[in-house]
Amino acid sequence: MAMMIVIYPTPKDIDAFDRHYFGTHVPLACKIPGLRRYEINAGAIATPVGNPNVHRIGLLHFDDLAAIEGAFASSEGQAAGADRRIFAPDNCGVQMFLFDSKDVQGLDNDIK
Amino acid sequence: MAMMIVIYPTPKDIDAFDRHYFGTHVPLACKIPGLRRYEINAGAIATPVGNPNVHRIGLLHFDDLAAIEGAFASSEGQAAGADRRIFAPDNCGVQMFLFDSKDVQGLDNDIK
Repeated sequence: MAMMIVIYPTPKDIDAFDRHYFGTHVPLACKIPGLRRYEINAGAIATPVGNPNVHRIGLLHFDDLAAIEGAFASSEGQAAGADRRIFAPDNCGVQMFLFDSKDVQGLDNDIK
Repeated sequence: MAMMIVIYPTPKDIDAFDRHYFGTHVPLACKIPGLRRYEINAGAIATPVGNPNVHRIGLLHFDDLAAIEGAFASSEGQAAGADRRIFAPDNCGVQMFLFDSKDVQGLDNDIK
């Protein structure tokens, strides 16, 4: 699997941000081809280390990095990216991380 | 579900970091009570927006935030936290985010 993590800093107008995020951005992102799962934080984000100025985290899951590349080259991906730059411009402190992921093996608790 | 995301900046000595991470930290973290799943990046992390200086991302999954609190109050959690501060001190640029998570509903692709 692969994922894109998007970390949004706390906006000046939280209500306006959330209205745009849930009313416009999430519906656009849900149309991205190849998106397998879309998780977000439910409630407050604790930041015991590092920058505490974080309001929203989204995790978008795909089959692999090639699927992410294809997704964001699509018209739906381009639309979601363009919309993201409206409510969270590149220079606002937003962070994005894209990577293939794997499970660490050997948990004592094997209920996975 | 709830998760802890840990984002490690690129260390000066990548080989030494990885030896410690996989040889010491991962085995310690795998003993944390209540840990349901432990994912890491497999290969390079792309950073199209934000700080590109990132080497490692870990996602530790738990049932809920209360389980995370209990986990890190345990001796195993304390040991893993103390070890993390050895190879990634609080002031090195490491970021940690803890939150309850939920799935966004309404994906066009419902293979979840």
